[in-house]
Amino acid sequence: MPVLFKGKKPSRRAFLKGAVAGGAGALTGGTALAAGEKVITELQPWMSESGAPVDAMPYGKPSAYEDHVKRRTVEWLTADPISSINFTPLHELDGIITPNGLAFERHHGGAADIEPGKHRLMINGLVETELVFTMDDLMRFPRENHVYFLECAANSGMEWRGSQLNGCQFTHGMIHNVMYTGVPLRLLLEEAGVKTAGKWLLAEGADSAAMTRSIPMEKAMDDCIVAFKMNGEALRPEQGYPVRLVVPGWEGNMWVKWLRRLEVGDKPWHHREETSKYTDLLANGKARRFTWEMDAKSVITNPSPQAPIKHGKGPTVITGVAWSGRGTVPRVDVTVDGGITWHKARISGPSLDKSMHRFYYEFDWDGKPLLLQSRAHDSTGYVQPTKDQLRKFRGVNSIYHNNGIQTWAVDEEGIAENVEIS
Amino acid sequence: MPVLFKGKKPSRRAFLKGAVAGGAGALTGGTALAAGEKVITELQPWMSESGAPVDAMPYGKPSAYEDHVKRRTVEWLTADPISSINFTPLHELDGIITPNGLAFERHHGGAADIEPGKHRLMINGLVETELVFTMDDLMRFPRENHVYFLECAANSGMEWRGSQLNGCQFTHGMIHNVMYTGVPLRLLLEEAGVKTAGKWLLAEGADSAAMTRSIPMEKAMDDCIVAFKMNGEALRPEQGYPVRLVVPGWEGNMWVKWLRRLEVGDKPWHHREETSKYTDLLANGKARRFTWEMDAKSVITNPSPQAPIKHGKGPTVITGVAWSGRGTVPRVDVTVDGGITWHKARISGPSLDKSMHRFYYEFDWDGKPLLLQSRAHDSTGYVQPTKDQLRKFRGVNSIYHNNGIQTWAVDEEGIAENVEIS
Repeated sequence: MPVLFKGKKPSRRAFLKGAVAGGAGALTGGTALAAGEKVITELQPWMSESGAPVDAMPYGKPSAYEDHVKRRTVEWLTADPISSINFTPLHELDGIITPNGLAFERHHGGAADIEPGKHRLMINGLVETELVFTMDDLMRFPRENHVYFLECAANSGMEWRGSQLNGCQFTHGMIHNVMYTGVPLRLLLEEAGVKTAGKWLLAEGADSAAMTRSIPMEKAMDDCIVAFKMNGEALRPEQGYPVRLVVPGWEGNMWVKWLRRLEVGDKPWHHREETSKYTDLLANGKARRFTWEMDAKSVITNPSPQAPIKHGKGPTVITGVAWSGRGTVPRVDVTVDGGITWHKARISGPSLDKSMHRFYYEFDWDGKPLLLQSRAHDSTGYVQPTKDQLRKFRGVNSIYHNNGIQTWAVDEEGIAENVEIS
Repeated sequence: MPVLFKGKKPSRRAFLKGAVAGGAGALTGGTALAAGEKVITELQPWMSESGAPVDAMPYGKPSAYEDHVKRRTVEWLTADPISSINFTPLHELDGIITPNGLAFERHHGGAADIEPGKHRLMINGLVETELVFTMDDLMRFPRENHVYFLECAANSGMEWRGSQLNGCQFTHGMIHNVMYTGVPLRLLLEEAGVKTAGKWLLAEGADSAAMTRSIPMEKAMDDCIVAFKMNGEALRPEQGYPVRLVVPGWEGNMWVKWLRRLEVGDKPWHHREETSKYTDLLANGKARRFTWEMDAKSVITNPSPQAPIKHGKGPTVITGVAWSGRGTVPRVDVTVDGGITWHKARISGPSLDKSMHRFYYEFDWDGKPLLLQSRAHDSTGYVQPTKDQLRKFRGVNSIYHNNGIQTWAVDEEGIAENVEIS
């Protein structure tokens, strides 16, 4: 039985009666039928006319009534949609799996459209035997399945200097969470035979931007995956079809898509994406480099600016997601009064290593303004900081690794807004 | 480290060398580059030309190179595609999540196209207060998230009298496995207040077939869910949009889609779908009724008739799925010699209650014919039976609940066929 209404466990009848006593316009837990009332038996077209046949859609798609559920871009954010971002509509989702059609995209030369039969993955550099793999070759290695979140290092990056964007899709939507199937990277490196001097790996994409990132050998040999499936089916083109690197818990830019080359070397390469980009500029003008791990973070997805409370006061569900690049998230706290009182949220769904977690907090809204926040605690004991705590150490110059606590202000009408509180 | 090659753990170098020693035409673990060889640096169009912009596809879809991955129907199986089945392409999938676009469909009056604002869910019958819920009402109740398999009771039903269909998509593809988000059915029933005499529930769909099934109150109050999301997003129309019943571990026909009514009664209704259909006709002319639970079952998805071995002898990955309506599947055995020798398969991915499990068995194929089988053991100790063991007790008249062990014969060319062995 989930915990209801700030830890109390009223009977479900109390839920209904409470709503009546609260004077809400309608019963919140369903409307009682008057004797002889026919509302439910009103004939709708779908009750009397045959629906779509089973051969109508060999590959299915959502209902037309869900057309508003989509990835969105922020036009002023980047100069060109070829090197840009769209955002996962977190406020329209629930559970922990991101459906493939709604997983955010970030690419630097457009989403490559690769013919898998012509794609090759090469391992070269400090190895005993340089190797070239076809996709069929990769399918002969042992595979593993893991659900991992992928978060762009720049997620929430526009918020360093103050609240900017009105919607969790835009403040936190550079994240997705899917089940990957692939070959442990370690097995491919062992196949080539890494030389003793080989301490670093350069991963390179086959897209027109030829994305490259340096990865320490220790991580490569630990839990990285060369993945070809997401949520059971082939990777989507914008996610690296036919093959991408999965670097669990680390910033998304390192998860090189359209993976074509793995070079083993003795030191990092210091390419563009790990020097002028994806480093964290501090207030003193120095920059942190190699800040790979994604710190614990959470956000309330409903209510939020794109998903106001429409039902008035009474029983209200608050929900959101939490994650950590260092493990699981055993605890999330929620406040509705800007941090004066914190409540332990209920986590529902699998709690998996380096995967998104779904939390809920159900309460009886009195219709007064709210200041909503969530705070993640990860399995290492790390607690998600406030934005001000982060700024004290990191300044406001960076665009990366902003995992500060998000605040939504909800007014009497249920409208939510992105705000900052001290 | 996954177990390789019948329990031995050779180094990955041994994998490569073994393939060379085995005389395969090409190195199976990748092809070594000759000095100066340029194969990997051959320019492909996707390396030099920009790909798709981020605003090209607000809701994404698979690569055009994956167009062959689709749900398929068997034309002779039913009289009309309005009351028919299509099948999940299990041989094209991996991991445990079925992507929403490929989840099999079974409906009796076509897939209803429901406008969610006009949809209502009624609870009536032996309750204190008859209630009508809008979709917005349902969103105010506490939610849960669970990954569950849904298997049609008729899955493998065409195989009772012998092997019929050449492909696991058709023999075993009436199953899918997704994460559901919804409200525990118990909470809605408690909201209405079930009277003491209320021991059964009739679930009714809003489709033109008005599907109805009787469900014992004990199950309804245990783990059933009134679900509105699958894999994070809204249910697909063919899966019951905007709301369906989830009856974990029980036959798919009971998971009433387009759920419009829940009637509480004191005995089962014995409607069409639980008398003339979805009962198991035995050899003596009597029929078993209320065979709700899905017994433990497994199938090898690769290789299989639709997915032959194309690479010749050497390292080969066998994979498949296993599930049980009674719990988890802690063990799957695989044989390549028709049951003379059984090997413990490796399970990779979350092992969740009443969810699909993914297993692998890697071995070094000598190029000789194979007789492949898999055998699931569930958490209650139940072991998947042979088809002949099933027939001894159940005869061959039924079309439901065939969970017998599947055999694929693989010839020297790697071609697989659906066969029976005694």
